[in-house]
Parts: sequence; C-alpha cells; structure tokens
Amino acid sequence: MATKPKLHYPNGRGRMESVRWVLAAAGVEFDEDFLETKEQLQKLQDGNHLLFQQVPMVEIDGMKLVQTRSILHYIADKHHLFGKDLKERTLIDMYVEGTLDLLELIIMHPFLKPDDQQKEVVNMAQKAIIRYFPVFEKVLRGHGQRFLVGNQLSLADIILLQTILALEEKIPNILSAFPHLQEFTVKISNIPTIKKFLEPGSKRKPPPDDIYVRTVYNIFMP
Amino acid sequence: MATKPKLHYPNGRGRMESVRWVLAAAGVEFDEDFLETKEQLQKLQDGNHLLFQQVPMVEIDGMKLVQTRSILHYIADKHHLFGKDLKERTLIDMYVEGTLDLLELIIMHPFLKPDDQQKEVVNMAQKAIIRYFPVFEKVLRGHGQRFLVGNQLSLADIILLQTILALEEKIPNILSAFPHLQEFTVKISNIPTIKKFLEPGSKRKPPPDDIYVRTVYNIFMP
Repeated sequence: MATKPKLHYPNGRGRMESVRWVLAAAGVEFDEDFLETKEQLQKLQDGNHLLFQQVPMVEIDGMKLVQTRSILHYIADKHHLFGKDLKERTLIDMYVEGTLDLLELIIMHPFLKPDDQQKEVVNMAQKAIIRYFPVFEKVLRGHGQRFLVGNQLSLADIILLQTILALEEKIPNILSAFPHLQEFTVKISNIPTIKKFLEPGSKRKPPPDDIYVRTVYNIFMP
Repeated sequence: MATKPKLHYPNGRGRMESVRWVLAAAGVEFDEDFLETKEQLQKLQDGNHLLFQQVPMVEIDGMKLVQTRSILHYIADKHHLFGKDLKERTLIDMYVEGTLDLLELIIMHPFLKPDDQQKEVVNMAQKAIIRYFPVFEKVLRGHGQRFLVGNQLSLADIILLQTILALEEKIPNILSAFPHLQEFTVKISNIPTIKKFLEPGSKRKPPPDDIYVRTVYNIFMP
C-alpha cells in the first residue's frame, strides 16, 4: 500500500500551496513536515534529500520531488489532470504557466518592503485584469463549459481558482468585470474535494502573516 | 505537409534560445520573424496572436504557443525527448527546471546595471558549482551513461548543454572540477543535429551585445 505523500516546507502558503491544492483536488491525503529552523533545512540538505538544496520537496511514490512545477506536473499526470491528448495538455500547460506568473507576484508580495506592498497590489490587479483574466474569461465564454480545457477538471482550473481566491483576499472586487470567471469560481469551489479543502480545518494555509514571513527569513536567509 | 514552425522574438538569445536549441536538436527546421520595434509587438498583441501579450511565441502545428516552458514541453513531447514513462519524465522535468533556474540568471545578466554584472557572474558561478553541476556530475558518474536520463537524448541534456556553453563564455573554466560534465559536453555537442547547430551559419544566436540589449529595451519598455 502506498504511503501518503509527505510535504516538506514551512507552515505557510509560499510555493507549496499549489501542491496542497492539487493533491486536495485529486482527493489525495498527505502529511506535512513543517520546516521551522535553518537547522532543519540544513539537515535535509546534508542528507541529500533536496536535489537542488531547495524546498518545496515532496516525498511521493518512493521519489523525493523538487521544483514546484515538476511536482505539480507529476501529480497532474498521475491523477489525470493534464488533458486527454497532447493538444489539451499543451493548452493546460500554457494556462498554468500564465497563472503561475501571476501567482508568483502574490507569493512574493509579503516579502516586499512595506512601502512597495501597496504599489505591488496595484500592479498585480492590473496584470490580472489586463493580461490574464481576459484570456480565461474569453475561453470560458467561448466554449460555455465548466472547465477551462476539455470539459473536465485539470491542473489549469485548480491553479486558476487558487490564484483568484488569493487575489480576492487582497482585492475583493477583482472579478467584477468577469462574469464567467465568477461563475467558474463558484462551480470549481463546489467540487466536493475542493469544497472540503476550502472549509476550516483543512490543510489549506491562511494568508501569510508576520510570523510566516519571519519564519521564512529565519530559515532561508544566510 | 506541415509548414515549418515560425518563431517570434527579437534577434537574440533571451528566452527563445532554448526553443531554438530543442528544435535544432530534434532536427526540425524553423523560420524566425524577428521583433525589432514596439510597433511590431503591438501588432502581434492587437491581432490576438499572443495569449498573454508576451513573446516568445511559436507558430507550430496550427497553434500559437507561448510561455517558454510550454513551448519546450510541446516540442519535447512531440519529438520523444521526455523519457519513456512518467518516472523518467519527472526526472527530466526536475533537471530541466533546475537548469532553467540557472539559465535565467544568464538570460537576465546583460540587463543588470554595469556595476552589478561582475558580481552576478560570481553569483552564477557559485550557483552552478555548488548547487547545480554537482547534481548532474553525480548522475552521470552514477549510471555511467552518455545521457542524463534513460540512456537517450532528452530535453534535460539539451538545456543543460545550452546552459554549460553559455556559462563557459563568461567563465571558461567553469567545468574544471566536473570531469563527467566535461565529457558530457563533448559528447552531446557531437550529436549530428547539435553539432550542426553549433557551427557557424546556424540559427544559434551570438552572446547578447549592446545592440540586442537596446533592441529589447526599445521593444518591451513602456
């Protein structure tokens, strides 16, 4: 019997949160080993558990996966979240890559200087509204289906929902001009595995706070 | 009959150079449409040719692919450069992601302030020597094969060779402590399609110079 995947990362969102989302959406239970100190990271590095000395790292199916995208791709492949053929796969890949570019701004935001944080909220709102959301709005409007690609749940839907909800925490009306994305958000949020992940008590992490930021600095700064 | 892929990007390496490498290694001929002005970019954007308003963009098999990784993945899938099963694919993906992190430093280097450029060469040398090259040296030493994964050419070999050669231009002795990577570099460089790409007159682009940097600023700066 396969053991549960084990996630190695600080107790916060960061680059691991997408992995938590995709595992949860796929209905996979997982354990977490939270990094809290530089020594714990050093121990993982010294034991050759981290291919490139970095987390996220996920122990799964006898492998120690690193690099966020590689982890997401593996889980998506394993759980049929990557389309039915190469054309669908490539669309999903492009949608995910675009969304991850937007999500990266959100991930880095708490680590900006306080003066830059408000400006960056404006920047990420503009990027979302001008560059990324119109693409997905048009896709959904165009085919009239519930999911972005191939009429079934894929990695692209999951990462987009994660990104929309994280943005809405900062900019509550971010979807006001995007009715199809509003509907998408409601529908995908109601998929049972995802609904459960969105309820209190799940392994979804709260928005980054000062303690998370301090912990990350303590672990990763030289 | 399929038409040749057409690459849309400035006439320089940047994020497109990996795409040129992988197409060349796969023996695929391609055309290039070089962006030289902001107006040309605007025209692509206005014509809805760029999913997220950005290049690289590659017209291939009736699609307009964007996002560097998605383009690389599609070409790798199509030309059997992604391993024989999910486990090999995942190894290749991790190796590529690590190498792309290193390559990103090289891509951004010419756009740093002059004062920062020399410091950054030291940083990328350290990253290469401490974090990335030991991993690949160990992989090659461990299995004694010519290629990184599965005893056949993959996306991982191609992107690693591209990155090694680009680093050697700045730091000629960067491989001095890595005998297996030296051998790898020679052997992969001698694969006929790659050998041809490394010869004068190919579509490989020269190291970035002032003209390239100025062109990029002219096209992409607001």
